[in-house]
Amino acid sequence: MRALWLEDRRLAIRDDVERPVPPAGESLVRVLLAGICNTDLELTRGYYPFTGVPGHEFVGELEDGRRVAGEINASCGACEPCRNGRRTHCDRRTVLGIVNRHGAFAEYLTLPFANLHFVPPDVATGDAVFIEPLAAALEVQEQVRITPRDRVLVVGDGKLGQLIAMTLRLTGCELVVAGHHRHKLERLARLGIETVAGDAPAETPRQFDVAVECTGSPAGFELARKALRARGTLVMKSTYAGQLTVNASSLVVDEITLVGSRCGPFRRAIEVMETRSIDVRDLVEEVYPLGAALAAFEHAQRPGALKILLRP
Amino acid sequence: MRALWLEDRRLAIRDDVERPVPPAGESLVRVLLAGICNTDLELTRGYYPFTGVPGHEFVGELEDGRRVAGEINASCGACEPCRNGRRTHCDRRTVLGIVNRHGAFAEYLTLPFANLHFVPPDVATGDAVFIEPLAAALEVQEQVRITPRDRVLVVGDGKLGQLIAMTLRLTGCELVVAGHHRHKLERLARLGIETVAGDAPAETPRQFDVAVECTGSPAGFELARKALRARGTLVMKSTYAGQLTVNASSLVVDEITLVGSRCGPFRRAIEVMETRSIDVRDLVEEVYPLGAALAAFEHAQRPGALKILLRP
Repeated sequence: MRALWLEDRRLAIRDDVERPVPPAGESLVRVLLAGICNTDLELTRGYYPFTGVPGHEFVGELEDGRRVAGEINASCGACEPCRNGRRTHCDRRTVLGIVNRHGAFAEYLTLPFANLHFVPPDVATGDAVFIEPLAAALEVQEQVRITPRDRVLVVGDGKLGQLIAMTLRLTGCELVVAGHHRHKLERLARLGIETVAGDAPAETPRQFDVAVECTGSPAGFELARKALRARGTLVMKSTYAGQLTVNASSLVVDEITLVGSRCGPFRRAIEVMETRSIDVRDLVEEVYPLGAALAAFEHAQRPGALKILLRP
Repeated sequence: MRALWLEDRRLAIRDDVERPVPPAGESLVRVLLAGICNTDLELTRGYYPFTGVPGHEFVGELEDGRRVAGEINASCGACEPCRNGRRTHCDRRTVLGIVNRHGAFAEYLTLPFANLHFVPPDVATGDAVFIEPLAAALEVQEQVRITPRDRVLVVGDGKLGQLIAMTLRLTGCELVVAGHHRHKLERLARLGIETVAGDAPAETPRQFDVAVECTGSPAGFELARKALRARGTLVMKSTYAGQLTVNASSLVVDEITLVGSRCGPFRRAIEVMETRSIDVRDLVEEVYPLGAALAAFEHAQRPGALKILLRP
């Protein structure tokens, strides 16, 4: 089958990748659409030494034609994290397109049946490809209780920042998004979300109860940190390519909480889509055929790019 | 009056420091005993550019002879943090012996009356000097819910580590203390607390739900980090002299929560003392007269030293 292949940080389209055969308990999924995520870009920069087919945001269909989205962590079900309700942290997990499991930038993939969620008929395929990142966005609310009284800053107006802002708006909190791209901020403003340019929150520090860092850059972390009041919470939502240097004493003195945040609740994401609580369609910047995946990756790396999709 | 004076990181005994005159709302306190804390040692290493009388752990008496302990943050009562229940984070606070307020290594100090807590008659003066650090230890439990099901690691067997271990034991959690000083670990073992030597938790990583870092060193932070399971909580209880470099991606992937932790609940600390739930007496290594404060500071910096007290 055709697939995008990552090896030694280099990407190539290959037509000789074997179509996967699902082992017991797994299903074969024909990929309908797949999204390029920042983690995919980080993989090409060496974030994690993965060889194989990348891609973990997808909507596909089973052999019987039913459409599915899929949780990306395949877990053993037997280790301590699995037995204690933390299956996404399974000791022996494989992760679709990231760790020891071929991913979604291909004609077919396999995943454990338990990982698959049926896409309701009312949800368009072009929307369903956002279920995975939408779940990741909703994870913030699983980890931090956010109420209408909270002032929340989202740092970063990119794909993930947009989704997080849209989901946070559902909480009724006082929301501000800081970003560097005018057209992305304008998109949020059209949704009634307050936006500020770039470093503006640094000028009036300590105003926010919660800050969600979606840039994966030390500068973004610094901005989020400065924006927080004492006893505030900083949610780290992005993977970072390198080490991060923090002023540990200031975290202690200000009693700041840092929360790392990763994959989230698929059921809740599907519910949000089904009730049309948020609209993701205009987050798509372009759809490329799988054969043009290299061009798609280049496009996804342009400053200001929104979601780039691949269609096998 | 006699006082210890810190200036340009250098300590000196002075007999010409003016006895403080309490402004409106404040009380004059004659210091009976004061404890040397790691933060005091950090001040002599330039942690914070303080000039004046250091010292913030004390028990003293009012002019009418009643004994008091004192909360160290003097707050304005009017700013946003004060109005929202975070008085220890007041924007305009002074901090006893640390920020813009002379401290306890002196014959007298002043504090707002609202900061003072009466020491119950049953609590000995030698115990009451531990109320401030005991409150700081109890702050961990204010910030992180700890149950008998939790496995908790305390990294560091020093003064603060000992107090934190003793208070955590009250929760009934599965507790382990890792430290480098045999006599300190033996002290904990005598209390029925499980102890392990130095880096032992690194050999079997990811075993703990909560890790409390009490060393203020990057090595201690690393050990605490490694000991945590996914979605575990790392409480940072020490001030750090420098910057800390962390692997931010691993915090995100493992969804770790970091919590900075500082001053704590005095009332609860006094209650713990009054009910004799913990015994602090053998934490005192030596009591020096205030005139010998320089020798006391030298002693406090010896590896393995427990609590050094000063008596004006």
